[in-house]
Amino acid sequence: MKKLRMGVLSTGNIAATMAETLGYMEDVELYAVASRSQEKADAFAAKFGFEKAYGTYEEMAADGKVDLVYVATPISEHCANVKMLLENGRNVLCEKAFSVNAQEAREMTALAKEKGLLLAEAMWVRYMPMAETLQEVIASGAIGKPYTLTANLGYLLESVHRMMVPELAGGALLDVGVYTLTFASIAFGDDISSIDTSVVMTDTGVDAQSSITLCYPDGRMSVLNNSLRALSDRQGVIYGTKGFLVVENINNFESITVYNEKREVTARYDQPKQISGYEYEVRACKKAIEEGLCECPQMSHSQTVRIMEQMDAVRKNWGLCYPMEK
Amino acid sequence: MKKLRMGVLSTGNIAATMAETLGYMEDVELYAVASRSQEKADAFAAKFGFEKAYGTYEEMAADGKVDLVYVATPISEHCANVKMLLENGRNVLCEKAFSVNAQEAREMTALAKEKGLLLAEAMWVRYMPMAETLQEVIASGAIGKPYTLTANLGYLLESVHRMMVPELAGGALLDVGVYTLTFASIAFGDDISSIDTSVVMTDTGVDAQSSITLCYPDGRMSVLNNSLRALSDRQGVIYGTKGFLVVENINNFESITVYNEKREVTARYDQPKQISGYEYEVRACKKAIEEGLCECPQMSHSQTVRIMEQMDAVRKNWGLCYPMEK
Repeated sequence: MKKLRMGVLSTGNIAATMAETLGYMEDVELYAVASRSQEKADAFAAKFGFEKAYGTYEEMAADGKVDLVYVATPISEHCANVKMLLENGRNVLCEKAFSVNAQEAREMTALAKEKGLLLAEAMWVRYMPMAETLQEVIASGAIGKPYTLTANLGYLLESVHRMMVPELAGGALLDVGVYTLTFASIAFGDDISSIDTSVVMTDTGVDAQSSITLCYPDGRMSVLNNSLRALSDRQGVIYGTKGFLVVENINNFESITVYNEKREVTARYDQPKQISGYEYEVRACKKAIEEGLCECPQMSHSQTVRIMEQMDAVRKNWGLCYPMEK
Repeated sequence: MKKLRMGVLSTGNIAATMAETLGYMEDVELYAVASRSQEKADAFAAKFGFEKAYGTYEEMAADGKVDLVYVATPISEHCANVKMLLENGRNVLCEKAFSVNAQEAREMTALAKEKGLLLAEAMWVRYMPMAETLQEVIASGAIGKPYTLTANLGYLLESVHRMMVPELAGGALLDVGVYTLTFASIAFGDDISSIDTSVVMTDTGVDAQSSITLCYPDGRMSVLNNSLRALSDRQGVIYGTKGFLVVENINNFESITVYNEKREVTARYDQPKQISGYEYEVRACKKAIEEGLCECPQMSHSQTVRIMEQMDAVRKNWGLCYPMEK
């Protein structure tokens, strides 16, 4: 493959950010965009310079020239969109949360393996170099044995319709909590012994905010706070037996600052220059496709399913079931 | 009263900090120190300039010239020490945690009222001007409706014997958690609808670390992290519908920084110049004694009892009962 011929499914805000990013990537061709409206597809194609503009998702899926389709529809649509694309022979990069629940994620990833196609979750922070830097800093012993992790993520999302309705798998957990859970997973791994959680629900029947505490067999603990109603500092803090470290913006690690026992800064790692950060997941997909892989090593299918299982467990605790699950 | 004739009960580290602070206060006289060892009392008196050095607690309690006794013994001793002092007619400022449990706190405060003496909890942050500043900033609407509160406090305390043993009411909760609970109380009040908690225990049978989530009837939530095994950033963060604020060091509020919706700093409040910060609680006690009060308005008996009740509820959830409670 010379250039990756990219298809974008849907024309929302995040699709626009991806399109803009793709425009700066030398090894990517802005090939096709698909919308349920030909008019929107045409406008999007014209704005960002895509060659093809399809007025249905199915038309783009049928275009064998598309190397990779980026799915940016609401979470509730992911499973159907991805399955349709895989059935048509397309490789897929699907936005997070990957699916409504773990069962959907299992079906989607199984189909990718069956078809021998790539299916990757667009959990961008997993693909970015700062994720590895964080793991290296922890492994270096700079803060001693890491013992406690906290992560706060909250945005003002009450005016965003899809966030507020159960029919679209709204709520803070799947859109915001997926990041705090991922942060814990990157830093502390996935060997979890228990999950406790508290929640405040909206009048519309989704989670407005929650705290989730993950305990690990060796005594570590992650405490995660998620909100769609309040703005947070977005920090992830890991405290250990010799100091602590602070990650600014767990949604796109801007910096990692290390403090010693005297709370003095001993090291700081800044994010390398990037386009938007989306380029890493696209490059990872390109490489995986070239190598004939069905998953990206940075975010394996088992990791994707595991995060969905954690969110299933949290929702079960709350008694929150989306209409399409009933 | 011209100068407050101060007595200090015990000669540990915190007693030394108090003695040093008293030495800088113009309206206080370093009158007496009491230890179970005459030698230690003499050394402490000589070092800080106390007039009297008593080799038993009872001798100081019997000295009618003492206006206020500061109790700095381990938590497990507070109830007996305070009761003995009150029975002898002394006013008392008792270190936090105030007692082992709410029942002790009720007995202690009831005795003070019965005797018509002052009994105050040395929860220093309650008496400091920054506590009021925090409440004013929240009330001003600068961050909109406050919705979520997080507070992290962790110190490296595993080498401190009393912290590690159930016999001395050790564990992170009573020494560290008392601050995170107090921070929540100052900022969000005490109308709590539920308490959830997770804990990691030490091999010695006390809590090494915990997360505590307080929910309020109006949908607010406080998530508190406490540790004696890992060092934390000591931050308290309150996030609201128009921004958030960060308190540096909830154990002695150093600054309050306010951020708007764009995460830009819009205001910063720094701690006024202080001796150690202990002077505020001593001054509050002096004023209360002069006014003939049994409690300080900054930290009423009901507030003290309420915090102990919260810690009782948390320990009940963990199944942690200290030996002296059995």
